Amino acid sequence: MAMSKCNRLCGSLTGELLDSLENVLFDCDGVIWRGDQAIPGAPDVINSLKKNGKRVFFVTNNSTKTRRMYADKLAKMGFNATEEEVFGTAYCSAIYLKSTCKLKGKVYLIGSNAMKQELLNVGIEQVGAGPDPITGVQIDWANVPLDPEVKAVLVGFDEHFNYMKLNRALQYLNNTECLLVGTNTDTRLPLEGGKAVPGTGCLLKAVETAAQRKAHVVGKPSHFMFDCLASQYGLDPAKTLMVGDRLDTDILMGSNCGLKTLLTLTGVSTVADAMEHQKSGCPDRLGMVPDYFVETIAELLPALQG
Amino acid sequence: MAMSKCNRLCGSLTGELLDSLENVLFDCDGVIWRGDQAIPGAPDVINSLKKNGKRVFFVTNNSTKTRRMYADKLAKMGFNATEEEVFGTAYCSAIYLKSTCKLKGKVYLIGSNAMKQELLNVGIEQVGAGPDPITGVQIDWANVPLDPEVKAVLVGFDEHFNYMKLNRALQYLNNTECLLVGTNTDTRLPLEGGKAVPGTGCLLKAVETAAQRKAHVVGKPSHFMFDCLASQYGLDPAKTLMVGDRLDTDILMGSNCGLKTLLTLTGVSTVADAMEHQKSGCPDRLGMVPDYFVETIAELLPALQG
Repeated sequence: MAMSKCNRLCGSLTGELLDSLENVLFDCDGVIWRGDQAIPGAPDVINSLKKNGKRVFFVTNNSTKTRRMYADKLAKMGFNATEEEVFGTAYCSAIYLKSTCKLKGKVYLIGSNAMKQELLNVGIEQVGAGPDPITGVQIDWANVPLDPEVKAVLVGFDEHFNYMKLNRALQYLNNTECLLVGTNTDTRLPLEGGKAVPGTGCLLKAVETAAQRKAHVVGKPSHFMFDCLASQYGLDPAKTLMVGDRLDTDILMGSNCGLKTLLTLTGVSTVADAMEHQKSGCPDRLGMVPDYFVETIAELLPALQG
Repeated sequence: MAMSKCNRLCGSLTGELLDSLENVLFDCDGVIWRGDQAIPGAPDVINSLKKNGKRVFFVTNNSTKTRRMYADKLAKMGFNATEEEVFGTAYCSAIYLKSTCKLKGKVYLIGSNAMKQELLNVGIEQVGAGPDPITGVQIDWANVPLDPEVKAVLVGFDEHFNYMKLNRALQYLNNTECLLVGTNTDTRLPLEGGKAVPGTGCLLKAVETAAQRKAHVVGKPSHFMFDCLASQYGLDPAKTLMVGDRLDTDILMGSNCGLKTLLTLTGVSTVADAMEHQKSGCPDRLGMVPDYFVETIAELLPALQG
């Protein structure tokens, strides 16, 4: 195996890499699908990996879907996948609060109904999901009724995010024992045609600024999602490949966890981005240089079917 | 005049300092009033300074009021003051866009009706003030209708701040020629009894995170508000005192602009905070050490009336 980084994965290198692996972790958006369209060949790649005896998992920072919703989406697109193979931040943040924090109490949720569902699945009640219109004046906001059972504020993607939710989070977090957890720090959700809308990272930054403290972040590049997966399935990092389209989340998490890393160019980051990190010589940036890159994961197919 | 910093202003020192001054700049909340209550003795201090031939100005980061609204509030509390003496961020950001940026076009405003009014006073039209409810799904948000005449996004305090406004700001700021201006970066608005609600700094941080660029900030500690005042009134910095309750805004702006600085303890910061900055030896923090401190500005009265 080559020791240099950022190599184009092709020819015999692909087979050698695949032979060395037991597990392959895929980011979703920009890697196996874009929006509601599967990347051409991606279902064949995932299904062939499994036929070749590899374990496959889906690791996504997106907090808007439950494991079940992801499994349904995967099935509709022709991926052979179960919900137990899906590790999204809605699920992982519920696991984090339940198993790592041993939370006894409710969550004040800035997030989706999917997050509410995953919290309920592990027995955690939430308040906050849905709209929270603003009324009154400053002194009313400062004295907004709080649920005394709330012991954590969880911030994920929430299209109903507004000043009142930000204020409520601040009032809960004035209690220094109230935890602050974020699903992820992605600043934008990329859409087709180069468009984008604000991501969870913007909402989390607003809450952190109001609370004057940093959140514990569950999503990539934090190692928690891999830890969560590894503790359930006993993965050997050296025999695991992380495949992603973002250097600052997917590839960095892979590096942080001692995984092999593969950048695919169907999403956000480019080879030029990776080369810049490599040339910088900055230790903080070297973790964002992937071991390998491909134009699309479909390039893995010949080696799998050969 | 003592050269050491953070001296308690008392005895003959007060008279010496006052004799050396032509101009006194006051922050408002926590300095001359708290909420809707004047600090006891504050109106007498301001009125006596004027009788003693000093020019007095009011310099506040709060963006929720026009100069006229401030003048009315000051008059009701017994302060002898005109609207021309008030430099709030609603007014100063309008001046900044008009005079410094020479803006030709409209502003997308995340802010109050007072900001809308100050923009109109200098002939700048805005879109955005008031509620902007969220509808549709991601792709609709990315394609939200934009006003092609908008050439700047201005962020101030806005209780109607929500995901849709954040998204609209991002869509405008995707045009790299669209300016991003913030009134101030205060993270919280302090209220009576140690309570607080989220400040403009939280909203601005969300917009900066989405836009992936930094705003130009008009408010303290930036020197723009002093420049604005000095250009209209020809102040000599060496003969000007900045009086404030916050080290990171009022005192730092004073230091940045070469003014004498006085911390009053009726608001946010403490002498202990100032001492920590002084002891740090860190050049970035020394600007937050005031020349003098008083418990309340009422302590200036004997020297003024003596």
